[in-house]
Amino acid sequence: MRLRHKPWADDYLKENDQVVVQEPFEWKGNWKSLFEHKDQPLHLEIGSGKGQFIAGMGKQDEEINFVGIERVKSVIVGAVKKVVDAQTTNTRLVNEDAEDLRELFGPNEVDHIYLNFSDPWPKNRHEKRRLTYHTFLEQYQDVLIPGGEVTLKTDNRGLFEYSLMSFSQFGMIIEEVSVDLHADEDPLNVPTEYEEKFSAKGQPIYRCRVRFKT
Amino acid sequence: MRLRHKPWADDYLKENDQVVVQEPFEWKGNWKSLFEHKDQPLHLEIGSGKGQFIAGMGKQDEEINFVGIERVKSVIVGAVKKVVDAQTTNTRLVNEDAEDLRELFGPNEVDHIYLNFSDPWPKNRHEKRRLTYHTFLEQYQDVLIPGGEVTLKTDNRGLFEYSLMSFSQFGMIIEEVSVDLHADEDPLNVPTEYEEKFSAKGQPIYRCRVRFKT
Ligand SMILES: C[S@@+](CC[C@H](N)C(=O)[O-])C[C@H]1O[C@@H](n2cnc3c(N)ncnc32)[C@H](O)[C@@H]1O
Ligand SMILES: C[S@@+](CC[C@H](N)C(=O)[O-])C[C@H]1O[C@@H](n2cnc3c(N)ncnc32)[C@H](O)[C@@H]1O
Repeated sequence: MRLRHKPWADDYLKENDQVVVQEPFEWKGNWKSLFEHKDQPLHLEIGSGKGQFIAGMGKQDEEINFVGIERVKSVIVGAVKKVVDAQTTNTRLVNEDAEDLRELFGPNEVDHIYLNFSDPWPKNRHEKRRLTYHTFLEQYQDVLIPGGEVTLKTDNRGLFEYSLMSFSQFGMIIEEVSVDLHADEDPLNVPTEYEEKFSAKGQPIYRCRVRFKT
Repeated sequence: MRLRHKPWADDYLKENDQVVVQEPFEWKGNWKSLFEHKDQPLHLEIGSGKGQFIAGMGKQDEEINFVGIERVKSVIVGAVKKVVDAQTTNTRLVNEDAEDLRELFGPNEVDHIYLNFSDPWPKNRHEKRRLTYHTFLEQYQDVLIPGGEVTLKTDNRGLFEYSLMSFSQFGMIIEEVSVDLHADEDPLNVPTEYEEKFSAKGQPIYRCRVRFKT
């Protein structure tokens, strides 16, 4: 499915308003009320890409509400299709940039953040763009509950090593870490599109779960 | 070189008293005075095995004093030979168990601790024996200077993952981490015997450098 024509994608996102949140900034502080089960924890994925993870998680764990943020319109349409097909009511998508996270979510509104195969920005001068740079961690801390968690998965060694240091230097605690996720048995792991691609090439997948100090 | 006859090893350790510290507990609090250059930092390796690392480090960095601890007599003789051959005056060996670290070193006496390819003790019920179990970290903190560092190298994924969590949960800060050391270029890395063996088999070598909070 190629989407050269933006208008087509625009229409598609508008038509599927049961999945795509149309005016996301207006829900700041009230995300729970958007969902059928309003008292469930809220988990957020940043950079959902084509949505295999968020759609799969929504199906796997119905007792959690999920929001996936993806800034590229031509990419998020793939995620919309997967979430629609999953026929869940606990999964929503937002076509925005996560740099505005504090505008999207109020303090303590989110329980868990997933970063899956985030762009590695390998050059030193692009460090600030990495989603685990300390300015992003500050945002995450603001929108997460006290002691909230972040789970990172990546095939990128540089990003993984950088992120472990960045989390640690921010005072976060490593709760779980795997330097070869697919060698472990984790029946609850939902692979992303990138994960399947890189794992098929024989590359190790790295994962860590870290927690902000209370 | 096989050493079935302990007496032979005993003699060898006694004869080489310029390298092997004969009454190590008597130096507690005064290790610096044992060395030619008394004002140099003191770095300690726990579980030196056959000594390639400690002998190589001593040669590479003459501005540091090194002590290697190894509890198995038939193994440490190999280390003695390498240190003798290196003809350095900054490297000493101790044939003791590191469980008694607080009896061997006074508070703030050590600047850096190396753990190289420590026994992984993979079974949960042996967790307490891992050299990165919190009781060992407490010892390290006591003998290290404030903000002192620990560097761990291993091929063992389970031990590496466990140690990252243990360090982090102890409040230590990750200063450096590599999940594939030999893919990096580190001209200062001195490989150990185990490191060469496992690396030759194509296994990744893991390393991290962590620091106690001041
Ligand atoms: C390398 S892809 C990985 C996609 C997916 N998570 C996977 O694992 O298959 C990274 C995605 O993150 C999105 N992204 C990067 N920075 C973002 C940001 N600041 N806000 C929202 N999305 C972002 C990109 O557009 C891209 O789709
Ligand atoms: C797997 S070997 C690795 C040897 C060497 N560091 C290398 O990398 O080639 C681990 C060594 O640590 C020693 N060791 C383990 N626990 C120790 C302890 N508590 N005190 C002193 N030595 C110890 C063992 O006797 C063994 O020689």
